[in-house]
Amino acid sequence: MLSAVANGVLSKNIASLARALRLIDDRTDGYRSMLKTLFPATGHAFVIGVTGNPGAGKSTLVDRLIAVFRAAGKTVGVIAVDPTSPFSGGAILGDRIRMQRHSGDAGVFIRSVATRGHLGGLSQSARDMVRALDAFGFDIIIVETVGVGQDELEITKTAHTTLVVMAPGMGDEIQAIKAGILECADVFAVNKADRDGADGTVRDLELMIALGSESMLAVSKVHGHKTHTSRDAMPEKSDGDAGDDTKWTPPIVKCVATRNEGVAQLVAACERHREWLSASESGRTRTHDRLAEEVRAELREALIDSAVSTLHGQIEQALERVYRREVDPYTAVEQLVAAFQTQLNQA
Amino acid sequence: MLSAVANGVLSKNIASLARALRLIDDRTDGYRSMLKTLFPATGHAFVIGVTGNPGAGKSTLVDRLIAVFRAAGKTVGVIAVDPTSPFSGGAILGDRIRMQRHSGDAGVFIRSVATRGHLGGLSQSARDMVRALDAFGFDIIIVETVGVGQDELEITKTAHTTLVVMAPGMGDEIQAIKAGILECADVFAVNKADRDGADGTVRDLELMIALGSESMLAVSKVHGHKTHTSRDAMPEKSDGDAGDDTKWTPPIVKCVATRNEGVAQLVAACERHREWLSASESGRTRTHDRLAEEVRAELREALIDSAVSTLHGQIEQALERVYRREVDPYTAVEQLVAAFQTQLNQA
Repeated sequence: MLSAVANGVLSKNIASLARALRLIDDRTDGYRSMLKTLFPATGHAFVIGVTGNPGAGKSTLVDRLIAVFRAAGKTVGVIAVDPTSPFSGGAILGDRIRMQRHSGDAGVFIRSVATRGHLGGLSQSARDMVRALDAFGFDIIIVETVGVGQDELEITKTAHTTLVVMAPGMGDEIQAIKAGILECADVFAVNKADRDGADGTVRDLELMIALGSESMLAVSKVHGHKTHTSRDAMPEKSDGDAGDDTKWTPPIVKCVATRNEGVAQLVAACERHREWLSASESGRTRTHDRLAEEVRAELREALIDSAVSTLHGQIEQALERVYRREVDPYTAVEQLVAAFQTQLNQA
Repeated sequence: MLSAVANGVLSKNIASLARALRLIDDRTDGYRSMLKTLFPATGHAFVIGVTGNPGAGKSTLVDRLIAVFRAAGKTVGVIAVDPTSPFSGGAILGDRIRMQRHSGDAGVFIRSVATRGHLGGLSQSARDMVRALDAFGFDIIIVETVGVGQDELEITKTAHTTLVVMAPGMGDEIQAIKAGILECADVFAVNKADRDGADGTVRDLELMIALGSESMLAVSKVHGHKTHTSRDAMPEKSDGDAGDDTKWTPPIVKCVATRNEGVAQLVAACERHREWLSASESGRTRTHDRLAEEVRAELREALIDSAVSTLHGQIEQALERVYRREVDPYTAVEQLVAAFQTQLNQA
């Protein structure tokens, strides 16, 4: 049955695609084998992540980006990760209405993913959904997330190119620019650029990018094991040439999405970044590193599943002992790992 | 050496405490054994999480909460998780200045944790730091985080009572209230309550709480394995009696932190929640569940460390094959797990 869904996706059946996405979202048994079937057909789409704080105008901008790509004859799939509460159970109404004008266009497919219940698994779901859209054959896949928290940063790692959308006058800019955003941003869009303060936002970003390049090197000495990806994603300041073989400095593009100004320039900036990714050594390294992160994350999940099924009752017993303060949690975990290894030995 | 640090903490040496926190932050080898020594001395502090979007006035409110607790003769430790960029390397200046007025008070200890480099491990660090402050003997421990992303929600699980700070007129309220916030909020503070729109914010929250109680039950049927905690944290609407033995409905407290209005009421609401936690069956279940989550998270980390050291070279080989598209990532992970189990068998 799942192989029928996979074959339907590969033969561009839109009902099968919707079905496949639902299976991924629900983690229905066997969805991984479906993804195995789809995998060889993937790797062709250009995946763009769009993130930024609430109110920056992301949904309107995504709507305009879709129009630019469609005008160039490209098909577009959108995964919108919604910040809805657990019980609203769907997309924010306004966003869906804005996107609605593409609803008669067979070259555009939009799917919302509610964040309810998923917690840590959201970036995994988003990545697998991107893969299904890729196998279906969309030329462009946009992953829209709201906010710039750690979960959003994880999700944008699914993308080749991450577009961070800012707007002037969104309150305390320094607080809004959270840790990691510079690491993840490949292109900055300063939306609502007709508002007061737009030039100030651009200057702040320029300063951060310039400062960031130096400080990232300092940070990398402290956290040596983590910075390989960071350094590639947030390279030293280049001389501004995006075609540079080794460095990528995130360009800052001013736009007014509601008036369709600057949107074509944004698309051009994203496409330059994509070229850099495939042409430069550090671009290729980054692609490699992201795939490695994916495999490690999957491995992590698989190992826990294995341990839980092996140790089942013992975990509960250990928890009881910790709760009664008969053992500290650190010692309890050491004992569980030792038990897991012993039991595999005896299996 | 680390046992000297632990003993220093237990004998209330402030330099040892600072040292212990640094060891936890850096995950210096052996910090876990230090925590084992500290663990028996923990369990006495009341831990309050304070979170909310940038601009809601959290830092000012924390400053006022400290003053209320100090006036009642209680000592206060603060862990401030800062949203600084990776390279600013410290706290936001404004926050520190606001807190500065407690700097001459030996009954107050404030420590910032930068979010740089930590990623997934931040909630673990925060939890271990809380434990060190608890072992030192602080009566009250406040964990302040900025934002309401998944990472902040994880961090607030360190707390007994989570205070979510809102302010009227912070842009799109619906978007600002992200998934999970109702699950984590034990008390809502509507700060800046002298501003226009404060009553509207209160009404929105009341509606969400009322709706949430019904929908959480619906969600719990879909995601059966995850909702035990959720249901306890975000219970059905009670008849408004916070002393009810089984249900807790988050109270909404209006305040103006800058004018010190409503702050004592907030403290009273937090203390009622603490009493509910220890007196009611569902409160005790929640405490138990959070400890269980901690042990599971630690187990997760320990298992991965074990697998990485066992499989080392094979993981790299698998990654190369995935990168060359000779194998899909799902199959590669299955093969790695099988190899891990086989090698433990042979060990």
